Amino acid sequence: MSEEEKNTIETIGEFGLIERLTSDITLLQPGTVKGIGDDAAILNHEGEMTVVTSDLLLEGIHFDLTYTPLKHLGYKSVVVNLSDIFAMNAQPRQEIVSFGISSKMSLKAIDELYAGIKLACREYGVDIAGGDTCASLTGLTISITALGTGSSKDIVYRSGARPGDWIAVTGNLGAAYMGLMLLLRENRLFQQDQGYQPSLDGYGYLVGRQLKPEACRQLRQVLTEGGIHPTSMIDLSDGLSSDLIHLCEASGTGCLIEADKLPIHEETARLSEEMYMSPLVAVLNGGEDYELLFTIGDGQQETLSRVPGISLIGRMVPAEEGYELLLSDGSTTSLEAGGWNAFTKPDQHRDR
Amino acid sequence: MSEEEKNTIETIGEFGLIERLTSDITLLQPGTVKGIGDDAAILNHEGEMTVVTSDLLLEGIHFDLTYTPLKHLGYKSVVVNLSDIFAMNAQPRQEIVSFGISSKMSLKAIDELYAGIKLACREYGVDIAGGDTCASLTGLTISITALGTGSSKDIVYRSGARPGDWIAVTGNLGAAYMGLMLLLRENRLFQQDQGYQPSLDGYGYLVGRQLKPEACRQLRQVLTEGGIHPTSMIDLSDGLSSDLIHLCEASGTGCLIEADKLPIHEETARLSEEMYMSPLVAVLNGGEDYELLFTIGDGQQETLSRVPGISLIGRMVPAEEGYELLLSDGSTTSLEAGGWNAFTKPDQHRDR
Repeated sequence: MSEEEKNTIETIGEFGLIERLTSDITLLQPGTVKGIGDDAAILNHEGEMTVVTSDLLLEGIHFDLTYTPLKHLGYKSVVVNLSDIFAMNAQPRQEIVSFGISSKMSLKAIDELYAGIKLACREYGVDIAGGDTCASLTGLTISITALGTGSSKDIVYRSGARPGDWIAVTGNLGAAYMGLMLLLRENRLFQQDQGYQPSLDGYGYLVGRQLKPEACRQLRQVLTEGGIHPTSMIDLSDGLSSDLIHLCEASGTGCLIEADKLPIHEETARLSEEMYMSPLVAVLNGGEDYELLFTIGDGQQETLSRVPGISLIGRMVPAEEGYELLLSDGSTTSLEAGGWNAFTKPDQHRDR
Repeated sequence: MSEEEKNTIETIGEFGLIERLTSDITLLQPGTVKGIGDDAAILNHEGEMTVVTSDLLLEGIHFDLTYTPLKHLGYKSVVVNLSDIFAMNAQPRQEIVSFGISSKMSLKAIDELYAGIKLACREYGVDIAGGDTCASLTGLTISITALGTGSSKDIVYRSGARPGDWIAVTGNLGAAYMGLMLLLRENRLFQQDQGYQPSLDGYGYLVGRQLKPEACRQLRQVLTEGGIHPTSMIDLSDGLSSDLIHLCEASGTGCLIEADKLPIHEETARLSEEMYMSPLVAVLNGGEDYELLFTIGDGQQETLSRVPGISLIGRMVPAEEGYELLLSDGSTTSLEAGGWNAFTKPDQHRDR
């Protein structure tokens, strides 16, 4: 172990750590008037609405450091957070990032984590504008708050869908969940036999979707160019079933989606088959895809169907018709909010 | 134990908990366009600067539940956070509040905590506009982000002080620290002898300053009415020495303050004497007073000296003259950044 690896935050203190992590941060957003270094950050949004969202990520609950590289964890923390800003059809501008760090964690490990955070912020063009850094008696804690802007006419809420609206989704579904299934399987085999060589061959896409997800930043522009304004929108973090039901509840509607229209990546289908499960389980209940689920008014579906990477998967219906899935054989089944509940299923911890 | 006390979040789940905690929240700020219930909150600040600050509070580091009532902890979490907004001479508008909660924590306990948070938000007229709620494998985690507004001409940074400026402070110093000393002493005596009756008699003010601190919201108006614009400002969270040195470092100045001019409450002086310590220790190194330390240009000191509750304690000097304290006997001593370092002094955990 090198000298550098033996260094912990005890040797440099809180202010030394903040200096180490933040000294190379350059501000990208003209609206970031004052970033790190005062009691608070100052943002100038020039009359636009401010959009703000916060996530708390706890070791053992939202991530497991035994199979999540720290740099990926940092990257993912930002992406997950930005996804909520995109889900309002707004543009992210700043991130406020706080850590609770065990004093036994090496500086190198913290650097890795922060490198991932900085990389994601650079990729998405947002500024790290502040935060709080403190010791933790237990595991790693990450608290992350994103600020964005949008004009009031562009912002899209969960509550605007009406019966007859078309339901659309970006990208494909269930890949992040199958990536996790694969990592868990390989981790389990390795735990049983330390000589086992974990293999992720042939499933690079799935592992990438789990470890290094991306937020759907391009939809906003695509919609603007097409002259389409969604009636409602949500990001897919808990799984299609749960998040679609959230959208329906907020809008006061029901929904009918078609299994045959759900976008599934080839690797998702292949690994599901290998694991003797229906890919629908991953698509409906697997979370963390960070795709955007949205609705558009009747009449715009033709325009939208010509946009690559977007699938029309069903329609909104009156609330009394419930939440239904039309299967390939013509039968229907009820959608259930099968997403993860951190409190009632403590054994099923997973990243998000 | 009643049925209600036995309930934990496992029985109602995450969404049940959020509903329980937030269903009675009414929005106070006209700028809160959308609060809890969507992917993000929407704030309309009508062209003013947005001021944002975040704090992370971890069990065992920032608070000890054995002597901090949960309602007080909630209240204090908000106050500590708002203090940073006031330290920019801005007006707080919204709070984003996230929790990591052990699934074994009772709903009653979480209600208590949240009641304190809501009370503080009501008292200060700010909206709870969002947050994240999740399970924790270990202790209680609170992440809290305040948003405020201010016009660019009103906002005060740490960096604006110049040699010759007068140094001023609101209220009195060291009271929160002595309140903590008292609580720790009584807790220790109780641990040694379970029959011991902890007594806080005669020190109600000190205990109040520790358990239920208030942020200094009135200074902004006082200064505006007096036509005074501070050249720099910081809130006193780490202790006068540390925070004054922060101000000097950011402004590129030194300072000379006078021990005889430091405002000390009668209870602070009395308990210091009882504990055989100089009250200067509490005043200089004790943190968590959440008073405001600020500087004003030469010529405004006459006006400011007539404002009740504000003390002029010294002057800014050129950087090469260092950070000095003039004692009663006419000698001087160097100020040291004696505030708390969470990483290098792990035995001295304290609230903040």
